[in-house]
Amino acid sequence: MSRRTRSRQEWEVCASTLARKTTNLIRRIVENLQVEPNPNKELIALSIGDPTTFGNLNPPEQVLQAVRDSIELNTSRGYAPSKGHYEARVAVAKYSAHQGNVHPDDVILSSGCSHAIEMVITALADCGQNVLIPRPGFSIYQTLAEGMGIVIKHYNLLPDEQWKVDLDDLESQIDDDTVAIVVINPSNPCGSVYDKDHLNEILDIASRNRVPIIADEIYEHFIFSGNKFTAISSLSQDVPVLTCGGLTKRFLVPGWRMGWVIIHDRNNILGKEIRQGLSNLSMKILGPNTLIQRALPAILEYTPQSFFDDVLLFIEDQAKLAFEELRHAPGLRPIMPQGAMYMMIEIKLSNFPEFSNEFEFIECMVSEQSVFCLPGTCFDYPNFMRIVLTIPEDKMREACQRIVLFCKEHVVFSEKRKDIEEDVSITTDVQVICDNDARVA
Amino acid sequence: MSRRTRSRQEWEVCASTLARKTTNLIRRIVENLQVEPNPNKELIALSIGDPTTFGNLNPPEQVLQAVRDSIELNTSRGYAPSKGHYEARVAVAKYSAHQGNVHPDDVILSSGCSHAIEMVITALADCGQNVLIPRPGFSIYQTLAEGMGIVIKHYNLLPDEQWKVDLDDLESQIDDDTVAIVVINPSNPCGSVYDKDHLNEILDIASRNRVPIIADEIYEHFIFSGNKFTAISSLSQDVPVLTCGGLTKRFLVPGWRMGWVIIHDRNNILGKEIRQGLSNLSMKILGPNTLIQRALPAILEYTPQSFFDDVLLFIEDQAKLAFEELRHAPGLRPIMPQGAMYMMIEIKLSNFPEFSNEFEFIECMVSEQSVFCLPGTCFDYPNFMRIVLTIPEDKMREACQRIVLFCKEHVVFSEKRKDIEEDVSITTDVQVICDNDARVA
Ligand SMILES: Cc1ncc(COP(=O)(O)O)c(C=O)c1O
Ligand SMILES: Cc1ncc(COP(=O)(O)O)c(C=O)c1O
Repeated sequence: MSRRTRSRQEWEVCASTLARKTTNLIRRIVENLQVEPNPNKELIALSIGDPTTFGNLNPPEQVLQAVRDSIELNTSRGYAPSKGHYEARVAVAKYSAHQGNVHPDDVILSSGCSHAIEMVITALADCGQNVLIPRPGFSIYQTLAEGMGIVIKHYNLLPDEQWKVDLDDLESQIDDDTVAIVVINPSNPCGSVYDKDHLNEILDIASRNRVPIIADEIYEHFIFSGNKFTAISSLSQDVPVLTCGGLTKRFLVPGWRMGWVIIHDRNNILGKEIRQGLSNLSMKILGPNTLIQRALPAILEYTPQSFFDDVLLFIEDQAKLAFEELRHAPGLRPIMPQGAMYMMIEIKLSNFPEFSNEFEFIECMVSEQSVFCLPGTCFDYPNFMRIVLTIPEDKMREACQRIVLFCKEHVVFSEKRKDIEEDVSITTDVQVICDNDARVA
Repeated sequence: MSRRTRSRQEWEVCASTLARKTTNLIRRIVENLQVEPNPNKELIALSIGDPTTFGNLNPPEQVLQAVRDSIELNTSRGYAPSKGHYEARVAVAKYSAHQGNVHPDDVILSSGCSHAIEMVITALADCGQNVLIPRPGFSIYQTLAEGMGIVIKHYNLLPDEQWKVDLDDLESQIDDDTVAIVVINPSNPCGSVYDKDHLNEILDIASRNRVPIIADEIYEHFIFSGNKFTAISSLSQDVPVLTCGGLTKRFLVPGWRMGWVIIHDRNNILGKEIRQGLSNLSMKILGPNTLIQRALPAILEYTPQSFFDDVLLFIEDQAKLAFEELRHAPGLRPIMPQGAMYMMIEIKLSNFPEFSNEFEFIECMVSEQSVFCLPGTCFDYPNFMRIVLTIPEDKMREACQRIVLFCKEHVVFSEKRKDIEEDVSITTDVQVICDNDARVA
């Protein structure tokens, strides 16, 4: 920082490293795809993670009413404390009792779950340190961390075991610079839901290695029948868990940007420093919108269970529909989700010799069938694609039929393989495909 | 990042440098003050920068109605593009035409003006580079920059020239690592408003030294009679100006967190890199609340001029009232603002020998008179205090009377000084005090 001795001769304004290195993997990939739909078929986008896009899923009347009421309060317009209004934090603490004992002081409101994740990652990690995230996993972690010089390392999920964590791989990824393990449960993009035993296995690794957990539970309670949601924080004995959540998905209001961090630290390991650090970080942009903060107690208290049940029933039905349709698509292997609102589908590229990767498969499917799915590479998982389950039923059915048609037109089986494939598509049932179907491609 | 060879023996979770170094100067100072009000007098807080706190200033009906209408739109709930909905950016571009030619693509919506400032600073500055901010100046700049290792340097304002920029000082502060000059106009805490000539002088320095300007114009249009607001961007020939603004102050909705960055780059100096960088940074938390985004066109279009006029008239009257009262306070020198909603008051400590700094003066005034003002050190400007002009008139009057009483009880004049002081307080008028009154203390 030397005193400027003479003026710069030319204008030269460079973007910071942070600005240059902050990228959105999904957008970067999608922008580079050739996606020209077939002009004779309406485009069906199975790629859009916003459940409100299609108009079939709307927040319940109680949620809207809570905000209508909030507008009339003259306390809904002023600044809130940066961590959020106390009443709103009380409401989140109560709503989150299934996570363990939550005190309002353990809650920090944020501008959506993304902002919650940003705060916890940047509170824990310095430049050069690393955070472990699942592969496949949601790409917001890269967007938030990499510009800061925080390293994102991956641990593998096992597609043949309902996307459970490869525990050996997880433990082997931990190094001296690992500051947190991210557990996304239920998962985007996999739709997997972990049971208590598996969560305990993950906690054991975290405990043994003294690494806190960041629990991304933005899809909490999005659980299909036969499965059960357990908050990882509720099982932790010693491992500090920073849980990130919000209204976004469950209440169908992603644009409202209302999220939160909940600090679970039973043994007081994080101490004052991390709490203070999170509190400091919340001062940067002074908390989320106060209209929604003031509505939060009513939103969390008065939304009827029937609303959640209906949404969930719809999504589960869509999952079944898609799964049933697509397991007849030669060369594909859909993996039945247990929750959330997505399904991963393997593209057995050996059966599609004209395509050298999943991008080509997806591009060709758009141009011929006007159906667009998100490439697995968006989740660091090539040879797969992700579909959303939230689109209207008729579109979902139509899309699946077009996908099946596309596969039939492009699949090439060697004689032997053909037998195997056809065999599988006839005899297996959901459970068998989920649990035991070995990856063939 | 070496592979972990053995488990850590103890839990040890440290906060990142960012989390530790992100601080709020105002809060830190206020928390360390001894502020025990006199139990026999109601506390009057002249410190609170939130104009909605006192209940006397409320957003206009049209603004509330715009949000009521927005709630009913099912497009107000989904994700928006991270830079903001196009219609909202069109509305901001139109509303900001006085800043120069603004295209919707030049607009990026943000979660309040703080978030706008965060984006522009972190888009321009790497760790170790610096940004110049005015002294006295608003402390959010430190909060946003210092944790990132971005250096905040100060340039002086001149209290005896209506807080104009000390141009020599400004230019002398520019060094090879200076990435931007922040101009806060109208100013928090000074309430100064710069005329065209002065803005051009600042632009000259920026141009000669090839340093872009960050224009913090969150108080745009908050201008008292006899003054005129000019957006610095409207005068710039070559200097790129990144203007930060929002609804916060003018529409009396600070909690709604709706702000924006406007990119002014007539000569295309910033080029794609900075635009892309800002766009990248906006992806981190996915834009501000969409309820307000959808209401923005109506808010900006239908708020009647009479609302703005009424608020401004009130604040100007309060400024006059406070100034008239306080110029009779022995040992104080209020500096009449030309806009915004604050007034800076010099505490001539040489006349208050029992207090060794402004903190002691302020603490004692709270304990005796139950009036609390913000220490100038909160704005890096000792021996001053800042009062807000937005509190109800009766409270303002009462507070000023108590301040005068307090000063009378504590002031000590040497014989000579007393003459001078009394002389000034009798003969000077507003203009003289503002323009010519030399600092005595
Ligand atoms: C796993 C996961 N975490 C976080 C988020 C971000 O949520 P929000 O929109 O509340 O920022 C998403 C959004 O899709 C997600 O899928
Ligand atoms: C000069 C200045 N800039 C920026 C801000 C932040 O505004 P916002 O509340 O929109 O983040 C303030 C708030 O007081 C301010 O005084």
